[in-house]
Amino acid sequence: MSITSSLTSATLCGSLAFPKALSCSNEFPSNHLSSPLENSKLCLTTYPKENVAWNLARVQGIRCHAMQVETREPFTSGKKFQLSDVIEGQQFDREMLSAIFDVAREMEKIEKSSSQSEILKGYLMATLFYEPSTRTRLSFESAMKRLGGEVLTTENAREFSSAAKGETLEDTIRTVEGYSDIIVMRHFESGAAKKAAATANIPVINAGDGPGEHPTQALLDVYTIQSEIGKLDGISVALVGDLANGRTVRSLAYLLAKFKDVKIYFVSPEIVKMKDDIKDYLTSNGVEWEESSDLMEVASKCDVVYQTRIQRERFGERLDLYEAARGKYIVDKALLGVMQKDAVIMHPLPRLDEITADVDADPRAAYFRQAKNGLFIRMALLKLLLVGW
Amino acid sequence: MSITSSLTSATLCGSLAFPKALSCSNEFPSNHLSSPLENSKLCLTTYPKENVAWNLARVQGIRCHAMQVETREPFTSGKKFQLSDVIEGQQFDREMLSAIFDVAREMEKIEKSSSQSEILKGYLMATLFYEPSTRTRLSFESAMKRLGGEVLTTENAREFSSAAKGETLEDTIRTVEGYSDIIVMRHFESGAAKKAAATANIPVINAGDGPGEHPTQALLDVYTIQSEIGKLDGISVALVGDLANGRTVRSLAYLLAKFKDVKIYFVSPEIVKMKDDIKDYLTSNGVEWEESSDLMEVASKCDVVYQTRIQRERFGERLDLYEAARGKYIVDKALLGVMQKDAVIMHPLPRLDEITADVDADPRAAYFRQAKNGLFIRMALLKLLLVGW
Amino acid sequence: MSITSSLTSATLCGSLAFPKALSCSNEFPSNHLSSPLENSKLCLTTYPKENVAWNLARVQGIRCHAMQVETREPFTSGKKFQLSDVIEGQQFDREMLSAIFDVAREMEKIEKSSSQSEILKGYLMATLFYEPSTRTRLSFESAMKRLGGEVLTTENAREFSSAAKGETLEDTIRTVEGYSDIIVMRHFESGAAKKAAATANIPVINAGDGPGEHPTQALLDVYTIQSEIGKLDGISVALVGDLANGRTVRSLAYLLAKFKDVKIYFVSPEIVKMKDDIKDYLTSNGVEWEESSDLMEVASKCDVVYQTRIQRERFGERLDLYEAARGKYIVDKALLGVMQKDAVIMHPLPRLDEITADVDADPRAAYFRQAKNGLFIRMALLKLLLVGW
Repeated sequence: MSITSSLTSATLCGSLAFPKALSCSNEFPSNHLSSPLENSKLCLTTYPKENVAWNLARVQGIRCHAMQVETREPFTSGKKFQLSDVIEGQQFDREMLSAIFDVAREMEKIEKSSSQSEILKGYLMATLFYEPSTRTRLSFESAMKRLGGEVLTTENAREFSSAAKGETLEDTIRTVEGYSDIIVMRHFESGAAKKAAATANIPVINAGDGPGEHPTQALLDVYTIQSEIGKLDGISVALVGDLANGRTVRSLAYLLAKFKDVKIYFVSPEIVKMKDDIKDYLTSNGVEWEESSDLMEVASKCDVVYQTRIQRERFGERLDLYEAARGKYIVDKALLGVMQKDAVIMHPLPRLDEITADVDADPRAAYFRQAKNGLFIRMALLKLLLVGW
Repeated sequence: MSITSSLTSATLCGSLAFPKALSCSNEFPSNHLSSPLENSKLCLTTYPKENVAWNLARVQGIRCHAMQVETREPFTSGKKFQLSDVIEGQQFDREMLSAIFDVAREMEKIEKSSSQSEILKGYLMATLFYEPSTRTRLSFESAMKRLGGEVLTTENAREFSSAAKGETLEDTIRTVEGYSDIIVMRHFESGAAKKAAATANIPVINAGDGPGEHPTQALLDVYTIQSEIGKLDGISVALVGDLANGRTVRSLAYLLAKFKDVKIYFVSPEIVKMKDDIKDYLTSNGVEWEESSDLMEVASKCDVVYQTRIQRERFGERLDLYEAARGKYIVDKALLGVMQKDAVIMHPLPRLDEITADVDADPRAAYFRQAKNGLFIRMALLKLLLVGW
Repeated sequence: MSITSSLTSATLCGSLAFPKALSCSNEFPSNHLSSPLENSKLCLTTYPKENVAWNLARVQGIRCHAMQVETREPFTSGKKFQLSDVIEGQQFDREMLSAIFDVAREMEKIEKSSSQSEILKGYLMATLFYEPSTRTRLSFESAMKRLGGEVLTTENAREFSSAAKGETLEDTIRTVEGYSDIIVMRHFESGAAKKAAATANIPVINAGDGPGEHPTQALLDVYTIQSEIGKLDGISVALVGDLANGRTVRSLAYLLAKFKDVKIYFVSPEIVKMKDDIKDYLTSNGVEWEESSDLMEVASKCDVVYQTRIQRERFGERLDLYEAARGKYIVDKALLGVMQKDAVIMHPLPRLDEITADVDADPRAAYFRQAKNGLFIRMALLKLLLVGW
């Protein structure tokens, strides 16, 4: 599905010969679709009760055009927004993030409990991966199975669009949506997830589309900061490493701008500095930021040191520049020595040697907990997309 | 298993020290095995009651030779045939097709219902794919999971027969049948499925064997015509595109010959005309057919326009011939204009540009519903093979 | 987890703020870790009651150091040992083998019963395969699913350690253990499984690590001999074929040395003779062995003829030597003629032509039953590692 709508402002479609009400909104809270009313897939499935385990997939094939919508009382549902797809980090405002994080915390409890959850029993998730990303795929599949759901795995989805067969992404989506209740898609092209969501009658989650978005990574990063530091307003974060190419640090900076009194430090080799678009965005959103070349000094005053990998493939032939860049900022025992007692070190993983192995045993090393949080965030999103609040 | 036997003519094996009766037939309704009595695997599992959820896999390892069969009263079971394997479209007569379609319609209801089916709970399907076919595999795996069953996935089954290891198909089947209750096999060699079924003590479904058969595609095509048009007797069908190489149109023509007063039009570029074997078969079965080069004229009087892809790989170096052939017969808005109101357009998918995208929104565009019907047909076959009627 | 501890000598960790007791042993029955007390991961999860379905994964992230262990009464639990990982055949003594085989026999009953087992319901197994081994993977996944558990499949785990990403095995394990309850790992490097087990806080099963160990194959071989022959003490076994490179025959010789009055015959082409280390080991353990070049003579007096494949890849350019070696010792109808009535033929599969196909129908051909026993052994190990006795 293609639209995230706040139910606080949604009205119900009336008189549909269909067992469940469909809500249609014309007040779209985000700006990623200029005019929802022009969109042919404006109807969102909602639920008369919270948490009703009703299979979204059952409505696939039904398209409700928002031409003639009877106006009823708005469906408030405890002021919760209704999630239809997860396409980009920017679709979430701080209230949405907070609500999703509440669900993720419930998911932590479910994952740790001894009894098998059946929240998503009977639901089928298709992982449609056009390029391999075993880590991301396992995390989504684990999330689905921890909630009692089932999975169809496709790691070679490129076969659909191979030269011999040449199918469009839209046709693939129309076929796969017939076999599943939700699609988790990894694609090599920026914008592919949005295109898929515009086609699909079932929810789509973007699990990374090329150099574009990887929204669940962005969500789990913010969730980890909140879990580890206990707050998001008023924090100071050092983004370290390859800031020019790192999708995660760009998305994180974007999301942090939604919170108050955030201070961001950019620490990177000159050749992979943070680009101006993000800096301008932060400035225009009143976020304080500065660039520094002194990681020790920055680390001593930050709540979060977010380290990233310098990607060799970005340097082409210039291995000398790569070698210089990668060795410049290392998180090691010495850095731990200057860091505050309650600060944490994060990393999107995989890491090479930009964090030394002897750091792992320190309680401030949060990166494996961060990876685990990806599970909880994905459990929360799957629940919200499939059965609602 | 290797034999499809009509239980209306089956007799029961007697006195086997085994909790379930085994039926053995010597009146095999199809001709694909010349003499069942020569076959070492003549025993079919039957069920004292319909729909009994008894695990077929539990009998694997037991081979019952049909040497000394006590004669009892024939087991009629409501005149239902017992399905043991699905190897080729021709194994089904029109009564079988009708019975399978009844089950497929039940499956539509199950798939749409909100509660999780447990019809195949505890059953394990192995997808043994010697070449990738993600679309077909997903459809089978979804079918199994929608019925509460489980799946073992093998997309690189060629590894079994790789040069280094060199195992025979028979040995692979004997191993895999120890781990599963049913095998869905895709193979690159014609006849592989029949060979597998002759070896296996559990049911085998042919999910395509090279240029040979793809019986579930043939079944879903016929099921789609019945669902969309409401009947199979008396229909007129245009088969369009690559009729020389298209496995689906050949199988469809074959199956349509089982119905009355069917009229078939062949519309194809000269270079990929329907071959004489099918034409002769239709003639000898009293099916009216004609060739035409005027798609508009044919489409105006048909119930079904079955479009297929012109496969570039069939033309080798002669790209000029390919380009000429592929552009010749396109289903587009203009064609929709002359088609009857209740006619439908079908396509086995994937499509390239032989159906233009602006046709998709027309209610007569049945190809995505057709793809979805593949799910229902496969659900029906899995149910029939594993738990019976 | 990295330690197999006998609970007959285990003591309980006291006073942990944790719902389940953690046992720590300092009397490790095997010698593959010189000093368990130096190991940082010494705590083993035990269970107040047998068979309690409590999710081991729930403790991941908790590391209990064995520094200050209160001494309580030893936890005897019916004198059963507690299994924490399966890394190498040598970790098992004959009492452990006997206990595991008892569970495997229970598993045979479960697999044959008509109702779905839920022993491992809610548990998630990750198959982390760094090289393909479809046969082994299917067997493990079937075992997990036959017990009601779920599976995350990774056939391309090499991606984790690919040049571009370059993650260490330890980091991969730390990530994957967050998504699953048990890891089944296949790796191309000897010792990889031990390294993984030393890192993981959840159980690890070695599904083959390069030229190193493949302990579940060794267990299923011994289990098959016991099932087929009815005993392990006093048996005579011919190991035939490639004894120099065959991992399975080496492990089998090793394990057979744990039993009494065993006689082993080595029958192989000169170029792939059994190496001295195994011969010395057998001698020092009082196992009688001899080399022979007369397979007929040996087969006439053995309980088990264990045939193996001569691996072409071991001969490099010398195809003449390969051809001579592979044709030298064939199990065929003639050999069956001299074998004892209750003897059996085994083979780890896949086979080429070292056993002729006409042998398959003889009841003494045990190799497909042997493959099936792999399922029961793996079911037993998964049960023991996840829920205990």
